[in-house]
Amino acid sequence: SELDITIASIYVEDALHFRNVPFRPDKLALYQVYQSKAIRYLFVVFPALLLGLALVENPAVKVLEVHWQAIFALELVCLIACASRVFHLRLCLQRGDFWSDVKNCAIMGSIFIMFVDMMVWLGYKVGEEKEVIRVSRILRPLLIINFSDNRNLRKLLRNIKKTVVDVLSVLVLIFLFIAIFAMMATKFFERRSLLDPHGDPYLDNFWDSYWNLYVLMTTANSPDVSLPAFRSEQAFFVFFMPFSVITTFVLMNILLAVVYKHYKMHLLEEVKVDVGIIQSNLFKAFSLLKDTNTDHISKNVWLKAYKDLGCPDNLQNLYWDYMVPNDELPGISLQAFFKITDLLSSEIEVVITKKTWLELNFPFIYNSSFSCYLRCAIEHFAFTLVYDALIVANAIVLSVQNAPAFLEDLFLALFNLEIILKIYTFGPRKFAKTAWNCYDCLVIWSATIFSLVVDVEGLHDTKNEEMSALFLDMVLTLRVLRLLKLLLSIPQLRLIVSTLMQIIPSMGSYALLLFLFYYSYAILGMELFAGKIINDTVNCGREELNGTDFVAENYCVLSFNNILYSFVILWTLTLVNQWHILTEGFVAVTSKASRLYFLSFHVLVVLIILNIFLAFVIEAFMLQI
Amino acid sequence: SELDITIASIYVEDALHFRNVPFRPDKLALYQVYQSKAIRYLFVVFPALLLGLALVENPAVKVLEVHWQAIFALELVCLIACASRVFHLRLCLQRGDFWSDVKNCAIMGSIFIMFVDMMVWLGYKVGEEKEVIRVSRILRPLLIINFSDNRNLRKLLRNIKKTVVDVLSVLVLIFLFIAIFAMMATKFFERRSLLDPHGDPYLDNFWDSYWNLYVLMTTANSPDVSLPAFRSEQAFFVFFMPFSVITTFVLMNILLAVVYKHYKMHLLEEVKVDVGIIQSNLFKAFSLLKDTNTDHISKNVWLKAYKDLGCPDNLQNLYWDYMVPNDELPGISLQAFFKITDLLSSEIEVVITKKTWLELNFPFIYNSSFSCYLRCAIEHFAFTLVYDALIVANAIVLSVQNAPAFLEDLFLALFNLEIILKIYTFGPRKFAKTAWNCYDCLVIWSATIFSLVVDVEGLHDTKNEEMSALFLDMVLTLRVLRLLKLLLSIPQLRLIVSTLMQIIPSMGSYALLLFLFYYSYAILGMELFAGKIINDTVNCGREELNGTDFVAENYCVLSFNNILYSFVILWTLTLVNQWHILTEGFVAVTSKASRLYFLSFHVLVVLIILNIFLAFVIEAFMLQI
Ligand code: NA
Repeated sequence: SELDITIASIYVEDALHFRNVPFRPDKLALYQVYQSKAIRYLFVVFPALLLGLALVENPAVKVLEVHWQAIFALELVCLIACASRVFHLRLCLQRGDFWSDVKNCAIMGSIFIMFVDMMVWLGYKVGEEKEVIRVSRILRPLLIINFSDNRNLRKLLRNIKKTVVDVLSVLVLIFLFIAIFAMMATKFFERRSLLDPHGDPYLDNFWDSYWNLYVLMTTANSPDVSLPAFRSEQAFFVFFMPFSVITTFVLMNILLAVVYKHYKMHLLEEVKVDVGIIQSNLFKAFSLLKDTNTDHISKNVWLKAYKDLGCPDNLQNLYWDYMVPNDELPGISLQAFFKITDLLSSEIEVVITKKTWLELNFPFIYNSSFSCYLRCAIEHFAFTLVYDALIVANAIVLSVQNAPAFLEDLFLALFNLEIILKIYTFGPRKFAKTAWNCYDCLVIWSATIFSLVVDVEGLHDTKNEEMSALFLDMVLTLRVLRLLKLLLSIPQLRLIVSTLMQIIPSMGSYALLLFLFYYSYAILGMELFAGKIINDTVNCGREELNGTDFVAENYCVLSFNNILYSFVILWTLTLVNQWHILTEGFVAVTSKASRLYFLSFHVLVVLIILNIFLAFVIEAFMLQI
Repeated sequence: SELDITIASIYVEDALHFRNVPFRPDKLALYQVYQSKAIRYLFVVFPALLLGLALVENPAVKVLEVHWQAIFALELVCLIACASRVFHLRLCLQRGDFWSDVKNCAIMGSIFIMFVDMMVWLGYKVGEEKEVIRVSRILRPLLIINFSDNRNLRKLLRNIKKTVVDVLSVLVLIFLFIAIFAMMATKFFERRSLLDPHGDPYLDNFWDSYWNLYVLMTTANSPDVSLPAFRSEQAFFVFFMPFSVITTFVLMNILLAVVYKHYKMHLLEEVKVDVGIIQSNLFKAFSLLKDTNTDHISKNVWLKAYKDLGCPDNLQNLYWDYMVPNDELPGISLQAFFKITDLLSSEIEVVITKKTWLELNFPFIYNSSFSCYLRCAIEHFAFTLVYDALIVANAIVLSVQNAPAFLEDLFLALFNLEIILKIYTFGPRKFAKTAWNCYDCLVIWSATIFSLVVDVEGLHDTKNEEMSALFLDMVLTLRVLRLLKLLLSIPQLRLIVSTLMQIIPSMGSYALLLFLFYYSYAILGMELFAGKIINDTVNCGREELNGTDFVAENYCVLSFNNILYSFVILWTLTLVNQWHILTEGFVAVTSKASRLYFLSFHVLVVLIILNIFLAFVIEAFMLQI
């Protein structure tokens, strides 16, 4: 029965974390270790390291280049670590339960492929020292997603998978629609033999027309693509205008509408799945804990389980009373037991109004009439108003060119005074509880220290001066951001901003997913395009690029030459603007097939992921405002 | 009582059209004339003419230039016509009722301003012959909106007005957020004195930074605006990236979410207003028609009112039975009377299966065994399949370069055969009921006639050849569009397309509103920028434009030199891409204040109207799929 109580508490724990692991009761201790916080946090490190390898692998970020053997060793360690964690889980489960989980198969599969890939790499390196394509690196995000305990991330991915299936018909509609217009364009312009601004034939074959019309749908080549036609015959406006209306404003809107519709639907499904997991876990726990005669959990058993759950000692009676409001009941019923997640997931905080350190130790000062007067003034809303005005004044002074330097010191002194006065009035503990206060401290104190150091030491060599200028800029930036605090005092904005704050954690999942997605595309991009474009050279170092828009727009700095550059270019592609010029640059140094890389990125990121994100924001505001 | 019945029938009529006009019962006949279809349609002509004047007014479309006196006369006629219609309404109403309607005040006001403006114009023309600014033309769309009977348009405008008020706080948030980042950018870059690609100072003052960051929010100058900073210090990526994330992907999404939220809310309000109008009208009608003893409408009275409503004779018993299902009732109750709008607005169609002309007159042919066999074959789904395949094959042949000419004739013959066979089987009446069949006839017959004419006559001079090529292209275009029919046969797409078809009428209101909006902006744009940029000259005819992107991108063809060009450039601005380059072009030939014109257009059209349109599409799909 002691064991049963422990098992039950683990079920409750799993319910709280929405875990659905059918662990073997005889491997209880092993499973507890597997799920312990320390181990879980430790095993976040290895996937992160694995991802981080891209910084040092070939093509590496210049300052971080490392010998390949070090990379090989590190990668091996990471893989072994990941494999060991999965093996740990395998020991806790029945063979069937382990392999029936697609997640585990995916992890084992990816680790195996990566291992084989490493061996091939080793073979090549030991043998001919020739550079080898390491495609398995694309799989790393897949490993991370399956490996991670981040439920939100996996949920999001599930939602995306389902939504993709649903919106496939809209995507097909879009692609077919463009195909029809591409046919018409080809028919129009092949006989006219117009030239585009580079003197190349204009929309004279199907695939080029298709590509250009797809880009036009994204508006990136508007109005340029229509101008040669428009100049030759102004009536062609009635070809391009309807195309834009229908694709950009109707089909894209329909895509979003369908994505939103299905996103909302799947959200509901996910909630049902979560409730199902919680209930099945709690039911298992209840079955273990209940008294078989009364079908209720007795107080005795409850108190033991309560200890196993690691809840605060002083609340056990509160919990009991909440679940057993009627003393005539023999204990906790199944119905009442289901309430336990509400109790455990809500943080019950005992609010104690503590006296400040100053009030306790020097009451004669703190409670003197002058001090009372001062504290009243500081707590008055006018004090906040004055300092809000000072923040604005400071921002204006910052943005005015050549403002007198003493003003800057004055503002710093005033803001320091504010912090001291606030700490005096509210005490350090209460002061630090407001996030904005901490932010103010960080910003003001770092600026103060920095200006003191500069005043005392001075800055001699130019290198130092540059670094200090950059640091000063950062501090200034952070200070100007305090203006955002003022926005919050506008009532109409507070609602919007508070909703925004509430969805930031969920937005983190989107950011992480996008990061992993970028990572795979960056690796693929580096395999395809690394070194093809060289910055700071004429025509980006390639004769083929001579005369292209890519060179004309000075985009040589946007390349796939290392993982950081790749992220920058992928970010640029995410913003869509000029993506066709970037594409044409890489097409020029490779082949037209490269368009597929950029096209697929656009479809997956802009059409699907960003639309799902938009659906998420809309739904958040629909539920909250 | 006869009069009462007529008045009641007018109330019912007004309820059907959601009109809420408190006409004077003693001016009944006048009001009936006012609302008669013929008069209503006639008075659509004058506002349309008034709008059309922009084609011939200075700066006129070249081929349409007209002497100013003709324009003056035409405008006067239009104004007098509009005024007379309002005067007509004034006669039907009490003084107070007329002036308490803001709509009427707006119409009278606009007509008065336009009239004064015309007199000033006349004065200038008669006196000095100097060109004069005619700002009142901007008011024309306002007149149209208030003048028109298009309820959807006014509803839409009301919704936009309300939504603008609601999203104002989000717009303020966006503008303030950009201001904060603009301050930071100024602080960063004024000390670095970087240069942009044109060699101008880079983000070194607040207003330029603000403008560039606003444009960056629209992604139009991405990545160009960040490249000078990125090249000098790659860490600046962390300034521009968060800005883009927050503005483009968070604030813009929030804007849409808030617009959608409020759009949905206002939609509900509008429905309530409509129901209110219907009910108050019907209540007034019922009060006039009811028997004061029984509080019901007797059958006698009903039959007279029914005639006044102009309903089909053969349905009067059906209507009666629908509203009085129980014979024991003394007549139509108020509750039942409210159902009348359902009856009158739904088109009850008597379906009669008629024999085809051929079957009636030549049954021995139509019913011969060969004919039966043939008809079975045509009605079989394989027939449709074969012709679907032919449409695809035809489209492919059209899009292949240099396909043999005889194939084209073959396809035409086959499609003609299809039409004949279908008419033979279904009869012309049933055939013509399907919109696609009519479309096919139009396309195929015009192509057939055209190719016959060309074969017989030949084309001699080049002018003719060019025109015929354009005509042929149009016919081909229409034919390729038949592929869209095929898309409808995919079940997953049918749902989407059917929803799309259902919202097309409402989309018409958006199109009309956007057109009127464009019109005002086009007039304003012509007053500000007409003639400033000249096509087909070096540097667009202006020294100031030398070296700008506007010239480099060959945008001289995009100007405000007449109303049609203005629409093209406003359309380009609606697609957002390159709008900053267009703006800089017009800024270069005027002043930086011109940015306000383009900025306000972007805020009103892209941020507000297009987002409301997007909300409308989303809501349509939420309700229908
Ligand atoms: Na763009």
